[in-house]
Amino acid sequence: MISKRVRIREVGLAVGEYPPGKYNAITDVDSVKVGHATIITGKGPLRVGVGPVRTGVTAIIPHPGCLIDDPVEASYFVFNGAGTTTGLSLIDEFGLIETPIMLTNTLNVGTVYDAVVRYMIRKNFRNREVRWFNPVVGETDDGYLNDLGGLHVKTEHVFDALDSATGGHVVEGNIGAGTGTGALGFKGGIGTSSRRIRIGDVKFVVGVLVQSNHGGSLTIKGVPVGKELRKEEIKREVDGSIMVIIATNIPLSNRQLTRIAKRSTLGLTRGGWAAGHGSGDYLIAFSTSFRGKEWSSDVKAAREMILKNEKSLTPLFRATAEATEEAVLNSLFKATTMEGRDGHVRVGLPIERVLQTLKKFHRL
Amino acid sequence: MISKRVRIREVGLAVGEYPPGKYNAITDVDSVKVGHATIITGKGPLRVGVGPVRTGVTAIIPHPGCLIDDPVEASYFVFNGAGTTTGLSLIDEFGLIETPIMLTNTLNVGTVYDAVVRYMIRKNFRNREVRWFNPVVGETDDGYLNDLGGLHVKTEHVFDALDSATGGHVVEGNIGAGTGTGALGFKGGIGTSSRRIRIGDVKFVVGVLVQSNHGGSLTIKGVPVGKELRKEEIKREVDGSIMVIIATNIPLSNRQLTRIAKRSTLGLTRGGWAAGHGSGDYLIAFSTSFRGKEWSSDVKAAREMILKNEKSLTPLFRATAEATEEAVLNSLFKATTMEGRDGHVRVGLPIERVLQTLKKFHRL
Amino acid sequence: MISKRVRIREVGLAVGEYPPGKYNAITDVDSVKVGHATIITGKGPLRVGVGPVRTGVTAIIPHPGCLIDDPVEASYFVFNGAGTTTGLSLIDEFGLIETPIMLTNTLNVGTVYDAVVRYMIRKNFRNREVRWFNPVVGETDDGYLNDLGGLHVKTEHVFDALDSATGGHVVEGNIGAGTGTGALGFKGGIGTSSRRIRIGDVKFVVGVLVQSNHGGSLTIKGVPVGKELRKEEIKREVDGSIMVIIATNIPLSNRQLTRIAKRSTLGLTRGGWAAGHGSGDYLIAFSTSFRGKEWSSDVKAAREMILKNEKSLTPLFRATAEATEEAVLNSLFKATTMEGRDGHVRVGLPIERVLQTLKKFHRL
Amino acid sequence: MISKRVRIREVGLAVGEYPPGKYNAITDVDSVKVGHATIITGKGPLRVGVGPVRTGVTAIIPHPGCLIDDPVEASYFVFNGAGTTTGLSLIDEFGLIETPIMLTNTLNVGTVYDAVVRYMIRKNFRNREVRWFNPVVGETDDGYLNDLGGLHVKTEHVFDALDSATGGHVVEGNIGAGTGTGALGFKGGIGTSSRRIRIGDVKFVVGVLVQSNHGGSLTIKGVPVGKELRKEEIKREVDGSIMVIIATNIPLSNRQLTRIAKRSTLGLTRGGWAAGHGSGDYLIAFSTSFRGKEWSSDVKAAREMILKNEKSLTPLFRATAEATEEAVLNSLFKATTMEGRDGHVRVGLPIERVLQTLKKFHRL
Repeated sequence: MISKRVRIREVGLAVGEYPPGKYNAITDVDSVKVGHATIITGKGPLRVGVGPVRTGVTAIIPHPGCLIDDPVEASYFVFNGAGTTTGLSLIDEFGLIETPIMLTNTLNVGTVYDAVVRYMIRKNFRNREVRWFNPVVGETDDGYLNDLGGLHVKTEHVFDALDSATGGHVVEGNIGAGTGTGALGFKGGIGTSSRRIRIGDVKFVVGVLVQSNHGGSLTIKGVPVGKELRKEEIKREVDGSIMVIIATNIPLSNRQLTRIAKRSTLGLTRGGWAAGHGSGDYLIAFSTSFRGKEWSSDVKAAREMILKNEKSLTPLFRATAEATEEAVLNSLFKATTMEGRDGHVRVGLPIERVLQTLKKFHRL
Repeated sequence: MISKRVRIREVGLAVGEYPPGKYNAITDVDSVKVGHATIITGKGPLRVGVGPVRTGVTAIIPHPGCLIDDPVEASYFVFNGAGTTTGLSLIDEFGLIETPIMLTNTLNVGTVYDAVVRYMIRKNFRNREVRWFNPVVGETDDGYLNDLGGLHVKTEHVFDALDSATGGHVVEGNIGAGTGTGALGFKGGIGTSSRRIRIGDVKFVVGVLVQSNHGGSLTIKGVPVGKELRKEEIKREVDGSIMVIIATNIPLSNRQLTRIAKRSTLGLTRGGWAAGHGSGDYLIAFSTSFRGKEWSSDVKAAREMILKNEKSLTPLFRATAEATEEAVLNSLFKATTMEGRDGHVRVGLPIERVLQTLKKFHRL
Repeated sequence: MISKRVRIREVGLAVGEYPPGKYNAITDVDSVKVGHATIITGKGPLRVGVGPVRTGVTAIIPHPGCLIDDPVEASYFVFNGAGTTTGLSLIDEFGLIETPIMLTNTLNVGTVYDAVVRYMIRKNFRNREVRWFNPVVGETDDGYLNDLGGLHVKTEHVFDALDSATGGHVVEGNIGAGTGTGALGFKGGIGTSSRRIRIGDVKFVVGVLVQSNHGGSLTIKGVPVGKELRKEEIKREVDGSIMVIIATNIPLSNRQLTRIAKRSTLGLTRGGWAAGHGSGDYLIAFSTSFRGKEWSSDVKAAREMILKNEKSLTPLFRATAEATEEAVLNSLFKATTMEGRDGHVRVGLPIERVLQTLKKFHRL
Repeated sequence: MISKRVRIREVGLAVGEYPPGKYNAITDVDSVKVGHATIITGKGPLRVGVGPVRTGVTAIIPHPGCLIDDPVEASYFVFNGAGTTTGLSLIDEFGLIETPIMLTNTLNVGTVYDAVVRYMIRKNFRNREVRWFNPVVGETDDGYLNDLGGLHVKTEHVFDALDSATGGHVVEGNIGAGTGTGALGFKGGIGTSSRRIRIGDVKFVVGVLVQSNHGGSLTIKGVPVGKELRKEEIKREVDGSIMVIIATNIPLSNRQLTRIAKRSTLGLTRGGWAAGHGSGDYLIAFSTSFRGKEWSSDVKAAREMILKNEKSLTPLFRATAEATEEAVLNSLFKATTMEGRDGHVRVGLPIERVLQTLKKFHRL
């Protein structure tokens, strides 16, 4: 049964109050595309540089145009900064992101950074002088399963993730940057979700994608699922990290996007996140609708309403937390058990028992 | 005459009130070592990927031991964040730096990051499991002279810089990460300086190393040298960036090091720095004497005095600004004229005329 | 029954895993004292400047000595900054608090600031020259019940709160700065809780005091109590604010206390906090054991352990969130229904129904 | 001669390259008004509560309308936070200021805060319910001349400053919040200056007002005037504080205003500011042209240009530094010698000798 993985809504489970978008994915935000490269080779004892390899790269592309010429307004929030995400000071200063956002394992940040530079040069500077730009590359540590020190992500994997990026359905679980991760005592991975909201009468969407690798004790709809299941099979983990990417088509400023990124932590906490000492918790938010955009009269009206009273962003605050909470759950529901180096195993979430536990507590 | 380059004190020029250390260099701080790798090839028109190449890498190693086991207490200040320095969020969270600090060109940050990862694994994880860590890599844009898009810094250059690092005398000017840079309208480069100070009765030292590539108009001892010389040969530049690395052996906390890093901007301003829109101004400060150290009774006494009244850091505030100001000047005085891609030229500071100008204004 | 108010543990309810201190209050941290002044006069329609008045002041005194000579190491975290807490920039710069921490209503911050200045001058500068210092005064808006614009807190109320401060048992609910507040749809107020933890073998304590006035939907042990009860009598509220004061006797630096303050938000979120647009969420943390203290060998050992690996703070991270969660619950459990201006009513939490709801979901 | 005080341009002195506005004052920014209340009584030995009194209040009113309904976009930068400015967290969160900006002495912040609350209630809430808002009150310490502990600023002084505020000519020197201050070894006070700039083809203005009370050594046009004069009569001071208020009519966001505020420190540094340990250096910037404004087509064009490339703000960066530098000089040039408590004297800048010194160094 564990091999049949589903998203939470496929088994009748849902969190929050706002409805998801068409794909219930970050790609519900118009121009956003997601691509993965997954590297799984070898088994048995760790031999640094050889394997076993359980890692990858995930690319989130804000829009298909030239991001250097048309960057997206962006911001971020770091809850616990035990990690590296590059490009943050440019976000502080200019309020924008000018490259795809990349996720990978901790020690391959350099490789991915370099590969994005090469990709951007090839794509955007064919007929003009190369100028400086600053890639955004985040990471979590997949070394429990993966030969982290082997640095197995190569330039071609980064190109693969970028070149294969598409809109629509997003593959989740043990894929891309989520290949070797573990979260809340189970196998983690990539997960996504979205919410449809209204600012005044105008429809917008917010989408979230996570690379779940964080510590804590799984909580669903307030039920301490992790604690209940722990009696049987899983150990408690405090540390770990999570990357959260938030996209919206609401026209927001850098300052407002900081506020949105912060709200994501409410969703993480509701899911049982521990925010431990060694956690790298980076929440990055961008808007596809601020710069270099002609706004429809609808969007203008919404922008006006926000300018007049930012309290009109309340639905977005709440929806961001909800989509974050659900993206994490989807990452766990879709990730299968994986054995990595030295016989280390991350167990896929036992979905049936989770559902039983929820029923026991009258929450399903 | 331009080929004979000197440090400012060799021509009787000095800034500030505190005396420099033995080498008047960041290496006056006990365990600190500096290494460079310099890449100069080709001339003529730019052919991306071929050259001309005018770039390099500079490594600042806080101490020769295992930085992962014995990190140095650290902090930083970003004045204008138009650039990338990796590892800053870990400094915020843990207050430390756990790798050498690397400087290079803007688009080679990924390569250098990756190479430092390899270096650290090789050096520190031979007989134990590789764990995550976060290199600190900063940069400025040397694309006016250098084939920036050609990404000419390779792993072996990074190893060279690290392996060749030494204490004592530091080579300045067109070397390492300063090979292709320009500052204040002239050829920039690597520069360094130090100051000896006392906290109570205890002697300490603060050292600064810069990769000067910043915009503005050269000012020396209050004299608008750049403006005076501009009439003849140089054009006014607003943008550009500067990396400033500050080391001290005073036992300071992360919060206190933030304060020190900020004071560095006073030295930059006195030198004519413009802090323009596109400037990446990163000031990183670390102490070799906080963690994992047995303190002498002298150092304990100084620490006690600082704890009782932080105003006792006043000499350090002033000395940091002075050493920054002088490090920039040394970078200009030592850098020779360089021709790079497409016939672009950065002119070495015309030292004699500078001295004449200072005399004209009664400042020498 | 509503008139019989109890703390949560008196009805067999508890949150978290660590044991509370003797008083289960912020005063379990050795030298900390708490005092209140409560102002309740009038009823009926609002007449600005006349009443009805439902407001007050709460004072948290870190230690009974001269705080200007012996300040406490401190830090803070602002989640949503829609409010005012004075003195924060000094905390950033010097890492300390040098006055009692005061809580009151939004528009009386000035009065309380001024009164603390007078109190400090009288107490600390009788025989020496007055020097500058910076009071820490926080607030939330009690204007739904209180004549906020009437500015009814006077200097003598502030003196009363300060002069009556004691250790030991802390009165909770509709008292002091919590007199007129409302939280999560019910009557809010002052609440407190503490946790005993160990760093290595050394026993420490962390205590939290809240002025609960925040929006959201009450959640207890994961059960959406607010949502369940809302069907009957309460309306949903998004906005509001909360002040959280965290004290510990663990020797921590300013940077470490920032980390502790952040963890408090996990407790708030578990309790149903919405962190809405207009929320003023200020979390202030201080240590009674950093400056001007002779440390016992035990404390030295703990400090050494923390310095070696900050992960040893994990119990403190978790305990802070737990104590925050419980302090909020105590504030609600102890606050009785109050009618204020214009017939506005904040209903005291219906404790029996809460317990029934928890039983229904198998969480009691 | 000292009794004849002039602004720097009246004696042929000027700093910077951009032209000043009509009044060379912060009031050159359309709607901005400035008002003062000055309190000077008594002489001789200090008797706390009696005098001598040398203090006051200065009000900067961004526009004459209801600031609560129509706040101004705002931001700030704290270089050294040894002081108190209230209302900063609201600026972080909402990016705005919703009251006049008030300056006073350190220990009267509470009184002034309270009085502004009363003023705002009276002015803006006559016919509607009072809601919360957050005054911005800054300060420096005038205790060398003034009976600081006597808390001599009263509510009526604050009302006087607010009610007497006007556009046009701004009185400088020993007035309002500058009555008792000292800067760079001389008598400080209120000073102001402005610059006219163009963004594209559109004319704008930036104005600065300072309450100068900062430490350092006076520098004018690069000449170490303080050091030269010190030989004779003044002592060196490291500490002190400065409040800098920056206004512009360029439509800027909170993030952009942060950048502007930072540039002000370049002007301070050029003037000899030490940024010492105990300095409270607060730089607050606001735009009268962001919110609730109909923009002319000219302003829209400028806004578009800034949005496309923020480098078009370069003139504003430079002009802000220039106006800050000149505002400080005006504060010194206009302030006369003042004797305060205990025979303490702050000497008015000896203008003739300053001019002679500048001539000696060929800078006049």
